[in-house]
Amino acid sequence: MNSETITDIPLLRGPVALSHHFIRRFLHEGDRAVDATCGNGSDTLLLAELVGSSGRVWAFDIQQAAIDRSFQRLTEAGLAERVKLIRAGHETLSGHVTDNISLVVFNLGYLPGGDRSIITNPETTAKALEMSHACLKPGGILAVTIYPGHDGGERERHVVESWSAGLDARAFHVWRMGQLNVPADAPYFILIQKAA
Amino acid sequence: MNSETITDIPLLRGPVALSHHFIRRFLHEGDRAVDATCGNGSDTLLLAELVGSSGRVWAFDIQQAAIDRSFQRLTEAGLAERVKLIRAGHETLSGHVTDNISLVVFNLGYLPGGDRSIITNPETTAKALEMSHACLKPGGILAVTIYPGHDGGERERHVVESWSAGLDARAFHVWRMGQLNVPADAPYFILIQKAA
Repeated sequence: MNSETITDIPLLRGPVALSHHFIRRFLHEGDRAVDATCGNGSDTLLLAELVGSSGRVWAFDIQQAAIDRSFQRLTEAGLAERVKLIRAGHETLSGHVTDNISLVVFNLGYLPGGDRSIITNPETTAKALEMSHACLKPGGILAVTIYPGHDGGERERHVVESWSAGLDARAFHVWRMGQLNVPADAPYFILIQKAA
Repeated sequence: MNSETITDIPLLRGPVALSHHFIRRFLHEGDRAVDATCGNGSDTLLLAELVGSSGRVWAFDIQQAAIDRSFQRLTEAGLAERVKLIRAGHETLSGHVTDNISLVVFNLGYLPGGDRSIITNPETTAKALEMSHACLKPGGILAVTIYPGHDGGERERHVVESWSAGLDARAFHVWRMGQLNVPADAPYFILIQKAA
């Protein structure tokens, strides 16, 4: 039992909790996973725990501060060996990862506690989504948290939703998951699953 | 492995698959659960399996055909003892169930394979939702599948969404989960969790 659960029940307080709920259900020992927006390394750490010693994680970020923080957290947890930290934009994903991926996480927007002028770019995000969905294995998922509230967030939301809505419904199950009793610009979640 | 999963991965093909994903994650042995729209008994059967021999399920339907089919399926599965089948509208819920409920399922619209003129009524649905959310235990959920495509479905959708959007965000986590790459009147899912 921790702050995210009550007994064995996950508390779906917001999109990050929802994303973690799906990550825990869909990622298994031995899997290959990608954190497209490493940030403070919270998601990277969760992926590294879940894939176990036989799995592999690739984590991207353009900011050295994000790579450093994540490396420190992974090292403290004894999980650094499972993770390849890549200081580059996620639009370089296909140069590192090509197939058989179970899960790719995107946490869009800016680095929490960092420079808020450095934000994910809708064009490179679109490229990274395109690359990511192409390397998923059947049943694999993209887990995307969107923050429309920051500068440029509204355009990013539009790019991500348009791209998602254009996916062939026979090949991908595409879900938009937002809260009904929060402000309209609150963060929300998109889950894309490759069909089997 | 069955048609709903690939290895151990659930396939989120539509709102019913998504509803079952959450039901399987949130319902545990010994829990108390309600099927507010018994229908052909598919959800009732799943709830009865998950709550185990120490749990309890209440299932409502206004149509005798639905009660009969469900009773037959439960009996065949050897699970009839765990379930109280109630031939009455779900707006009578609070006369049977009062508190400590882990999960209430609603599958709105008409009985599959039955008389399509007999549909759930927005007013009684609203009453049943009101009663249901009041008897949830902390962390407990309402799992509501909505079919806007049938006659009266659009009004039902409006009633359910308005009611959901009005819930206090500190007391309930309210999620609308719809697919982005399907027609606008496709069925979708609402998940409401009582905060801890």
